Amino acid sequence: MGNIYEEALKKHEEWKGKIETHIKFEIKDADDLSLAYTPGVAEPCRKINEDVENAYKYTWKGNIVAVISDGTAVLGLGDIGPEASLPVMEGKCVLFKKFGGVNAVPVVLNTKDTEEIIQTIKNIAPTYGGINLEDISSPRCVEIERRLIDELDIPVFHDDQHGTAIVVSAALINSFKLLKKDPKDSVAVVSGAGAAGSSIIRMMKQLGVGNIYAFDSKGVLSSKHKDGYNFVKKEILEITNNDDEDLTMEEAMAKSDIFIGVSTAGVINADMVKSMKKDSIVLAMANPEPEIDYYVAREAGAKIGGTGRSDFPNQINNVLVFPGLFKGALRVRAKKITEEMKMAAAEGLASTIAEADLREDYIVPSIFNKDVEDAVADAVAKKAIEQGLTR
Amino acid sequence: MGNIYEEALKKHEEWKGKIETHIKFEIKDADDLSLAYTPGVAEPCRKINEDVENAYKYTWKGNIVAVISDGTAVLGLGDIGPEASLPVMEGKCVLFKKFGGVNAVPVVLNTKDTEEIIQTIKNIAPTYGGINLEDISSPRCVEIERRLIDELDIPVFHDDQHGTAIVVSAALINSFKLLKKDPKDSVAVVSGAGAAGSSIIRMMKQLGVGNIYAFDSKGVLSSKHKDGYNFVKKEILEITNNDDEDLTMEEAMAKSDIFIGVSTAGVINADMVKSMKKDSIVLAMANPEPEIDYYVAREAGAKIGGTGRSDFPNQINNVLVFPGLFKGALRVRAKKITEEMKMAAAEGLASTIAEADLREDYIVPSIFNKDVEDAVADAVAKKAIEQGLTR
Repeated sequence: MGNIYEEALKKHEEWKGKIETHIKFEIKDADDLSLAYTPGVAEPCRKINEDVENAYKYTWKGNIVAVISDGTAVLGLGDIGPEASLPVMEGKCVLFKKFGGVNAVPVVLNTKDTEEIIQTIKNIAPTYGGINLEDISSPRCVEIERRLIDELDIPVFHDDQHGTAIVVSAALINSFKLLKKDPKDSVAVVSGAGAAGSSIIRMMKQLGVGNIYAFDSKGVLSSKHKDGYNFVKKEILEITNNDDEDLTMEEAMAKSDIFIGVSTAGVINADMVKSMKKDSIVLAMANPEPEIDYYVAREAGAKIGGTGRSDFPNQINNVLVFPGLFKGALRVRAKKITEEMKMAAAEGLASTIAEADLREDYIVPSIFNKDVEDAVADAVAKKAIEQGLTR
Repeated sequence: MGNIYEEALKKHEEWKGKIETHIKFEIKDADDLSLAYTPGVAEPCRKINEDVENAYKYTWKGNIVAVISDGTAVLGLGDIGPEASLPVMEGKCVLFKKFGGVNAVPVVLNTKDTEEIIQTIKNIAPTYGGINLEDISSPRCVEIERRLIDELDIPVFHDDQHGTAIVVSAALINSFKLLKKDPKDSVAVVSGAGAAGSSIIRMMKQLGVGNIYAFDSKGVLSSKHKDGYNFVKKEILEITNNDDEDLTMEEAMAKSDIFIGVSTAGVINADMVKSMKKDSIVLAMANPEPEIDYYVAREAGAKIGGTGRSDFPNQINNVLVFPGLFKGALRVRAKKITEEMKMAAAEGLASTIAEADLREDYIVPSIFNKDVEDAVADAVAKKAIEQGLTR
């Protein structure tokens, strides 16, 4: 991978910023200026002053998302600070535009204090139609997102928590269809009980998965180890490990037909996959090296495999979701993103592969599939309307 | 003006945002993505983590300004709130791009608390290469700007204070040249002692103007009325009214050869202009109606007139300054905008009209004059280097 890093660095130096602003019309003379700026601009100002909802009608608010980070959990690099996280946030803005037609701008924060982050975002929120939280360390990210969802009336979405969860849900929906499984008969291991893992577990419960064993780096979540858990793990414990078993990864894998990994390479091996129940599904999304190599898993008997990487089949990539999700939410001026809207996004995404076209190595569409963006957007918009959460 | 407001409203509804984001390169496939986003993006992140100044090399920071307002003093509309100020902030971003090639994004704030505004802006500052404060009510705007200049290491500039002051200074530089006046022999009336007036007065003192009578809505600033003054007016009193005279506008005008108005229509009349000393200069910039009509002032004997309006000669328009000023500051990665850099901007702007081309109705260039942007930018960049305030 040496070369890609060198080349990326060279490109970034050449680009000096991956996005820029663009004026949406021509300015030829003073008359054009008097419409876009003073004195004409006073009129939309007055209209918005009369009714704040008019901001959607006369400003960029209806199609602008802030990509916000404090730089504490950036890629695999950890807490590298706000400036160093900017290239990732800009990259995210590129993806918003490319795969959703959504305007997005980065905002990186010079504070790690939970309350101050919440207050700062609330203070700048009138500028935007939606807020995408990014690369904020767990479990602070969970509290920050919940508080903002409660206290703001625009969509707030932490992609690291829910983006992967929605794509995993779509992959499971299609896997269940292809393998003719009833989710309630399934048992799953989820390796990783942080931000992404907890959201995946919640969505799998919504999908009806019968039992889930959640693992953190110390082992399975059970009441025996409860004392050291943060609030997120305590919540997860409530909905996993139905019989409060204290078992090893080996033991859990042998009882399961689904493995979902958002942890680190090597936590499972071929023998464990071999021991899994019939028609097993192994989605190993550790980055850059999956929990188990795609082909190793398939050869060990996994009926369906998937990773986070673009060089294997069934790439679980959250770019399949967040651009369309915000596109749909913004279209109907949604006030929030609900659990139901996330599930609608998963169903929308899953539906882009017709049942007849599903194959073991094709349960997730390509990110370059042009149907994805609108399938997700339409599903989210429809659900928001159903839930009465639009304006 | 009825029509322009209707048309502007229609245009704003059509535009739904005057600026949008744009990706600076093409994304055709997964390889392009792996350079702009993961995994390649990790490399510029690492480099910035090693040295935060590398953000200028690898991100948009070197060419992005935030246009920030709390919506408390928007145009003539007053305290209309953050959302209602968005059309103006977007308009400002349009001007930054059009007249300076500078990328700019609006940030409107849901707080009017001085300390909270300062903290919020400090928290988001790592995102930007510069901060343009806009339409924040006086005297809070002065404190907010000073604190941010002190506490941040990127340029912070409140255009409502200094933009007009710089253009007025340029107009005076050229007027002095054309009329062969020595500034120290001049006496001036400045009507308006708020944000813009105080900055104008400071720059006129730097230009060497002999004596200045500053007027607020209650009369001339003098020690007699001092008790009710806010800190800005107290500072202004220190450098104006050399002999601490208590006089009326009529009396002050008769002693002066310069009138600068940033107040309201009607505070002076033709008789007062007639009473002024030889070769008088009358820059009446109240909006939308000047303190005195341009032609009325000229007929009453003003040798040079000017207003804020595009339909009269010598338009004092701050779009002549802020785009080039930030362009220059960003080019050299300036840490702040100093008094000296502002004066350099005024001199750069003044120099765009060759001495031989100066006329009574042509002391200020057109905003569509292509030389303005770089004349201002070059002067500001040069001064920043001279002052050792670059990185």
